[in-house]
Amino acid sequence: MNGAESLLRTFVASGVNTCFANPGTSEMHFVAALDRQADMRCVLGLFEGVVTGAADGYARMTGMPACTLLHLGPGLGNGIANLHNARRAQVPVVNVVGDHAIEHQALDAPLHSDIQSLASAVSSWVHHCKLANQVPQDAAKAVQAAMAPPGQVATLVLPADCAWDESSAPASPLVPQAASEVPSERIEAAANLLQGRKGGIALLLSHPATVGDALKKLDRLAQYTGATLLGDTFLTRIERGQGRTEVTRIPYFAEAAMTELGKYRHVIRVGAREPVSFFAYPGRPSRLAPEGTSFHLLAERHEDIDAALDALSERLGVPRSMPSSERARPEAPQGEISLEGLGLAIGATLPADAIVVNEGATSVSGVPLSTAGAAPHDWLDLTGGAIGQGIPVAIGAAVACPDRRVLSLNGDGSAMYTIQGLWTQAREQLNVTSVVFSNRKYSILQIEFMRTGTMNPGPKAMSMLDLSNPDLDFVALAKGMGVPGTHVQSLDELSAALELSYSQPGPYLIEVPC
Amino acid sequence: MNGAESLLRTFVASGVNTCFANPGTSEMHFVAALDRQADMRCVLGLFEGVVTGAADGYARMTGMPACTLLHLGPGLGNGIANLHNARRAQVPVVNVVGDHAIEHQALDAPLHSDIQSLASAVSSWVHHCKLANQVPQDAAKAVQAAMAPPGQVATLVLPADCAWDESSAPASPLVPQAASEVPSERIEAAANLLQGRKGGIALLLSHPATVGDALKKLDRLAQYTGATLLGDTFLTRIERGQGRTEVTRIPYFAEAAMTELGKYRHVIRVGAREPVSFFAYPGRPSRLAPEGTSFHLLAERHEDIDAALDALSERLGVPRSMPSSERARPEAPQGEISLEGLGLAIGATLPADAIVVNEGATSVSGVPLSTAGAAPHDWLDLTGGAIGQGIPVAIGAAVACPDRRVLSLNGDGSAMYTIQGLWTQAREQLNVTSVVFSNRKYSILQIEFMRTGTMNPGPKAMSMLDLSNPDLDFVALAKGMGVPGTHVQSLDELSAALELSYSQPGPYLIEVPC
Repeated sequence: MNGAESLLRTFVASGVNTCFANPGTSEMHFVAALDRQADMRCVLGLFEGVVTGAADGYARMTGMPACTLLHLGPGLGNGIANLHNARRAQVPVVNVVGDHAIEHQALDAPLHSDIQSLASAVSSWVHHCKLANQVPQDAAKAVQAAMAPPGQVATLVLPADCAWDESSAPASPLVPQAASEVPSERIEAAANLLQGRKGGIALLLSHPATVGDALKKLDRLAQYTGATLLGDTFLTRIERGQGRTEVTRIPYFAEAAMTELGKYRHVIRVGAREPVSFFAYPGRPSRLAPEGTSFHLLAERHEDIDAALDALSERLGVPRSMPSSERARPEAPQGEISLEGLGLAIGATLPADAIVVNEGATSVSGVPLSTAGAAPHDWLDLTGGAIGQGIPVAIGAAVACPDRRVLSLNGDGSAMYTIQGLWTQAREQLNVTSVVFSNRKYSILQIEFMRTGTMNPGPKAMSMLDLSNPDLDFVALAKGMGVPGTHVQSLDELSAALELSYSQPGPYLIEVPC
Repeated sequence: MNGAESLLRTFVASGVNTCFANPGTSEMHFVAALDRQADMRCVLGLFEGVVTGAADGYARMTGMPACTLLHLGPGLGNGIANLHNARRAQVPVVNVVGDHAIEHQALDAPLHSDIQSLASAVSSWVHHCKLANQVPQDAAKAVQAAMAPPGQVATLVLPADCAWDESSAPASPLVPQAASEVPSERIEAAANLLQGRKGGIALLLSHPATVGDALKKLDRLAQYTGATLLGDTFLTRIERGQGRTEVTRIPYFAEAAMTELGKYRHVIRVGAREPVSFFAYPGRPSRLAPEGTSFHLLAERHEDIDAALDALSERLGVPRSMPSSERARPEAPQGEISLEGLGLAIGATLPADAIVVNEGATSVSGVPLSTAGAAPHDWLDLTGGAIGQGIPVAIGAAVACPDRRVLSLNGDGSAMYTIQGLWTQAREQLNVTSVVFSNRKYSILQIEFMRTGTMNPGPKAMSMLDLSNPDLDFVALAKGMGVPGTHVQSLDELSAALELSYSQPGPYLIEVPC
């Protein structure tokens, strides 16, 4: 078999069975090999930002890498923003970037470029294949690298001749590196801190501590010790809703974040880093915690957080069972659209086991509060701040979890970045409800404009932050890509449209003026 | 004044008066400064690939750089594919990439990334600003770097504090490097080669020899000596149509290119490099010329081609005036849509002084032939092979030349890459007629699939090369972004739609099934 086929077989043997792709000529042997490998699902994106964002969403929901298939440096370039987000999400992704045949590279053909520099900016592991018969080993190493805890972006550069030349048998999967053990001194220190204190302590959480058993253990720990569960501003994935603990989140704007952090004398880091502001502002500190705050480390992201929480719970004598919190599901609101009402409509109608992909920026300010009592769901944030993640991550989550409804919340500015992803939602008939909040501006930038200490914006500045003239019609855009949709003008209509979308398979788009 | 304002004033003083932008928080002081600098036009793109492609198109038509405004590493990442094309076009572009304030960078906030690696992959010049009062000098150097003959991509990384801190007065423009002189030995050698021979010699042209006086001199030289004018497969810009010479182009597919190159014993390079195939194929050579072809250098792209052609013409005694070629404008075709008919319809209706932006891939195969006798026009190609250039380059060309009609020819697959650019065409009411050829597949890849020696594609492979299921509706997409348009079903309807679009200001989109 050739290199491409041996690569695909090695991926499948290693548990990688989904490929998000936008191929070009240099990837044709990979494409051809797909039909000789029944266990690899391949999903086409019409732009590489869709492809890489989908791989991110898939990894968030499965914990396993999908592979991407990207065409040379420019194809990788188009995928970089969402690889940046995936890198920040610390999820496993295996990129396969096609390259010119090795001898062709020296000729500097038009599509030749510096793939190494591009890949290194967003990948924790980069490898250039050199020989077809080493490709299967390279592929196994790429998957192993991607699975390094808690997950990272691994990029395999595959020259065309390494794909088309005769290769060797598929390689056996390599055992991923294990999460490293948390030293007992840290557990002892955290226990001493938590013991006896009934306030002023936060457990600061980030991925992967915000799902599954880790989150349940943290909930019991917090209830037992009186510590507060505090979550990073942007989380890879968090389990929320009825019967689950509600984690307080560090607000986005620095002033509010500083107020929240000011409540705690001690902050114990569990997978999270010391909080810094998203941007710097003239004359203001970048570190968000007040001077007197003491930071303590329980576990870094790559360490065995589950085991550390077990040890800490045992040391403190935390009961195995504690009451689960009960919060009321909100009532569906009526009347005019408001930011608060949007959140209530979403919270009231959300189906059980939904996956909420949040790129709603300023428009979703009311949603976290009003979904705390909604049906149980997973919530995925924009981890790296590079907009254009919402539609693609929704694709990946829906491919990963075909039996669950994905609710994709998008600002209008963000949605335009990777709008092509709607077509993939239609082609694959994914169960994604996209809501686009049309406030017809980069609202966050209008706020940030003031916050950076600049004067009131003039007309030219305002035109750079404004999405009107002409108004975008997202329902028309969706229709052009085969996704049905509707405009809503009231909260009643929004709730009805959401429920309609949840009642039928396939994608749907709702445009909400706000 | 602050760094941002001094930067903008330096740009304007240096002749850079157009900014294509998609800013974020770290660029707010630049945005604010726009209203204090009346001579800088600023055009918003809803995605950075639109921004960078527009700067490319602008430079192709003006010879001057526009500046881009990009938001940190991910914003630059989104613009990389079209910067790759601009790099291959060898046109001047000045990127301004905002970065976090310098002290903030060390904190590794979510949007922090390795801008240097990303920028270096597509830029001939990269500089990171360090102090606000050095920003004006940095800006002048950036413009000077971009203007290095024949033009290159220069990237200035502007930390937010260098924009907001107090700066010094704007810097004076720096004189761009001059094109270096062609040694007289090369002129003598070319003259000896051309003298007396009446066939078997090609003058192989690329940018910047394909426009203006250089092209006229080459036309006379070719007529006088019997040499053939041969153009690179993909050209930055070439002047064509009635009354102008028609340059034979090296075909895209290697077999046809080798046949064409096989006609010449000697090839004299004028701004062009030795031709290599776009991609490598198993067992086939990457160099396109037969073994016996002798390549000779008259002038490299960065050298003074105009002066070299003057010297060569004088040495050979080429008359100052030679007859200009006359070719008939094609008749508007009727009936069913065919590849040949598409070309005829476009050639018959093209208005004088149009700018044709060609990203039509396989669908435009008949267009070059049938536009050779069309009204005089400029023709701009996809220089770097990274699709998604057509719509953005059309924006830049239309901004540069508001009194000319731009005809943007797009494959459906290519158009989807940067479809967001239609909104900018609507907002700026640019005189762009976009034609989208909907063959509902990556047709070029279906051809390349066979050429790479792979077997017949199976259903999974075919689905990666196919754009149907669902069909895209580009008229709906255009409408969603404020661009009017129509579907045509025959050549008559196509000609009528083209003429309608040419008769009215502003953008228009025509979707052609083919």
